[in-house]
Amino acid sequence: MIEQYPSQLLERAVGEFSKLPGIGRKTSLRLMLHLLRQDKDAAENLANAVAQLRREVRYCSVCHNISDTELCPICANPQRDRSTICVVENIQDVMAVERTGQFRGLYHVLGGIISPMDGIGPSDLEIESLVERVKEGGVEEVIFALASTMEGDTTNFYISRKLQPLGVKLSVIARGISVGDELEYTDEVTLGRSIVNRTELK
Amino acid sequence: MIEQYPSQLLERAVGEFSKLPGIGRKTSLRLMLHLLRQDKDAAENLANAVAQLRREVRYCSVCHNISDTELCPICANPQRDRSTICVVENIQDVMAVERTGQFRGLYHVLGGIISPMDGIGPSDLEIESLVERVKEGGVEEVIFALASTMEGDTTNFYISRKLQPLGVKLSVIARGISVGDELEYTDEVTLGRSIVNRTELK
Repeated sequence: MIEQYPSQLLERAVGEFSKLPGIGRKTSLRLMLHLLRQDKDAAENLANAVAQLRREVRYCSVCHNISDTELCPICANPQRDRSTICVVENIQDVMAVERTGQFRGLYHVLGGIISPMDGIGPSDLEIESLVERVKEGGVEEVIFALASTMEGDTTNFYISRKLQPLGVKLSVIARGISVGDELEYTDEVTLGRSIVNRTELK
Repeated sequence: MIEQYPSQLLERAVGEFSKLPGIGRKTSLRLMLHLLRQDKDAAENLANAVAQLRREVRYCSVCHNISDTELCPICANPQRDRSTICVVENIQDVMAVERTGQFRGLYHVLGGIISPMDGIGPSDLEIESLVERVKEGGVEEVIFALASTMEGDTTNFYISRKLQPLGVKLSVIARGISVGDELEYTDEVTLGRSIVNRTELK
């Protein structure tokens, strides 16, 4: 059904907004009419922030995290442990690990994971630059923090084969039952992994 | 919990986006990172469309519908029936009635409904301009198509008291069970209205 918009300006804005994933035309219309009820500043600020982000965004030359500067705040921080690199899929994952407060090393953002179904191969990801970082020396451990899926496991395997000859310690974040979860509601594969990878009580 | 954003540009864009109703910081971050993966044009087009909409938007001088011109396409259309005015709360409602294809008259967009709880009184709405339209003559019927709520009924009542002395026919859209609904799942009040306002079979 073709919607009749009383204004082409409105139609265009709704159209652009509804290109965003998970935002339909109805939500988009609601958001645009909301902006029209606000101060002029609200729409201008939103538009400027989005345009400026896209125009001026940079990525850290070392870890490929998003950054306003040549080095991201994490790579530039002298208090971070340079001997440990945590390999993650994307920027959200850096933020997720940072929120735990349990990791003081550096990151390496792959920009995706190997997924033949989506046409993403190793050369589409920041894998070579990770191998180069390890070759440069000073790295003692590489921690894989990728999704616990077939694609994540494939990527772990591919990269670990590349890094093994370099004599660096490789590890994978633990998979097991979530903190607060009950055993009876945990799937067998996860519970099985929890048992195999049990840790000694001290 | 304070999120650590690796980029202030990103943080600002996420902040502006999450001011929109129903868009949280997590969704907003996801949308911004999506835009960063697209062509530069995607973000620029979105930003320009929003800014231009807000800067150049106009409202129809007759019915207060959104419009790119002095008169909205509906008021400017010589084939619409000028003797009937359908009173609605907002622009979405104009579009909803238009989609039915059952109405060929003109509209009057109030810009809200009377709601003392939200501090919205008659003077905040386009009620005086509706009375003026009717006073100018040529209007035979005013149809109220407001929400079937206490606020909607209050607004119907308030406006109808103002219009009654002008000798114009007043009507309210029918309330009853939805097309396709089963009786046993319809609430009593709606079903009761359906029975009272039954229409003769022909």
